[in-house]
Amino acid sequence: MEKTKDFLGKYYFANLNETKKKVKVSVSADNLIIQTIKNIDDLQKSGNLLCKRLRDWYSLYNPEFSKALEDNKKFTELIIKNSKKDLLRQIGVKESESMGADLPEYDVEEILLVAKQVNSIYTLIDLHERYIEKLMKANCPNMTEVAGHMIGAKLIEHAGSIKKLAGMTSSTVQLLGAEKALFRHMKTGAKTPKHGLIIQHPLVANAKAADRGKAARWLADKITIAVRVDYFKGRFIGDKLKIELEKKLNR
Amino acid sequence: MEKTKDFLGKYYFANLNETKKKVKVSVSADNLIIQTIKNIDDLQKSGNLLCKRLRDWYSLYNPEFSKALEDNKKFTELIIKNSKKDLLRQIGVKESESMGADLPEYDVEEILLVAKQVNSIYTLIDLHERYIEKLMKANCPNMTEVAGHMIGAKLIEHAGSIKKLAGMTSSTVQLLGAEKALFRHMKTGAKTPKHGLIIQHPLVANAKAADRGKAARWLADKITIAVRVDYFKGRFIGDKLKIELEKKLNR
Repeated sequence: MEKTKDFLGKYYFANLNETKKKVKVSVSADNLIIQTIKNIDDLQKSGNLLCKRLRDWYSLYNPEFSKALEDNKKFTELIIKNSKKDLLRQIGVKESESMGADLPEYDVEEILLVAKQVNSIYTLIDLHERYIEKLMKANCPNMTEVAGHMIGAKLIEHAGSIKKLAGMTSSTVQLLGAEKALFRHMKTGAKTPKHGLIIQHPLVANAKAADRGKAARWLADKITIAVRVDYFKGRFIGDKLKIELEKKLNR
Repeated sequence: MEKTKDFLGKYYFANLNETKKKVKVSVSADNLIIQTIKNIDDLQKSGNLLCKRLRDWYSLYNPEFSKALEDNKKFTELIIKNSKKDLLRQIGVKESESMGADLPEYDVEEILLVAKQVNSIYTLIDLHERYIEKLMKANCPNMTEVAGHMIGAKLIEHAGSIKKLAGMTSSTVQLLGAEKALFRHMKTGAKTPKHGLIIQHPLVANAKAADRGKAARWLADKITIAVRVDYFKGRFIGDKLKIELEKKLNR
């Protein structure tokens, strides 16, 4: 009896350790790519939220410039580096005609703290994109060549892993990210969607409206081949796939 | 004819300039307090969103520690400053038993970039709170003494300005921030709310459940007096009001 108990105890711990080891080694590049892509989304949401507030707050001090520039990152860079006078000169408004209050230095500094925060969020997005490029080139060289690192990473995030993406048919890949439109089509008989995430690819985005569905289909074809080669660690054929695709589109 | 046109043109521009000047001087401390309070809200939202993602991502590397600490700011501080080994020792887990993957330096650094971002967001919240304290002490010394700078600032934000808050009855101030519960009471006859924002004040929060409504009413009374004195730039009576309130509560 004592012996059995002893054995069961040992068996339990050996089993637990085996499981822990398996969890430990199950982390792969997929996980890192997916986390980074998701974090970029969260950073963009936060950046936009805070920048909206920043523009509102900054417009007490300099309302003319607060509306002059759409790009959030550039806007924060400029207001951090330049004085109110210089900024107004850039958009052709005399300082004496500005409707902004003459806030004391101390209050302006508080606003610029927010600008620096927003700016660093957008900088982190850029760093993440470079990190994703590195991960994608190392793990999915073929897909990166055909689809680009950002679209490739988004497809992996959407599918759940490289393995799952490699198991998908090309028509599924074509519509990844257009689930809402697809189900609307199936339910109500509305138009079928022609492309999901891959609409962001320049070859699809720049195609004529009539050709866009075709371009999306061809691109999805090549992506499907590329990611399968990547998953099974085949040799590099991305450049060939890309040339084929470009030829087909330009015919 | 020519003369009239000339006059109208001049009149137009003189009028425009007058308006611009009025807009310019209409910015007051209220606006800065309200913007800062709103930004603290947005920063908290962003910080929580990004920290949730950070914990998820970090748990690939060190799952045991990712769940060990609730406080977001402290969590980011610790993982920035300490190695995985030290962190695991702090919570009594052997490094060999951890389920976290041994990620290369490069991948860990990317996670720590996010931790630094989150940490700087929480630091900015602290800076904003200090800034609000300064603004409130300069502009609403009486209310700050009675209600504290954060609750005072939130009341101003909720009312829209110091002027509007000064025009409110004490029962309105008592329920500011509990509008949802108030309208539910009026519509369905549910219980009346007893306190809005001011529940955060230690005198109300620490009162016995049965006394809490009374404490909220008394606090709102004193806040109403204090903010009116502040608005009309009266002399400092905050300390007297506070002592009266504490006496009443401890009787």
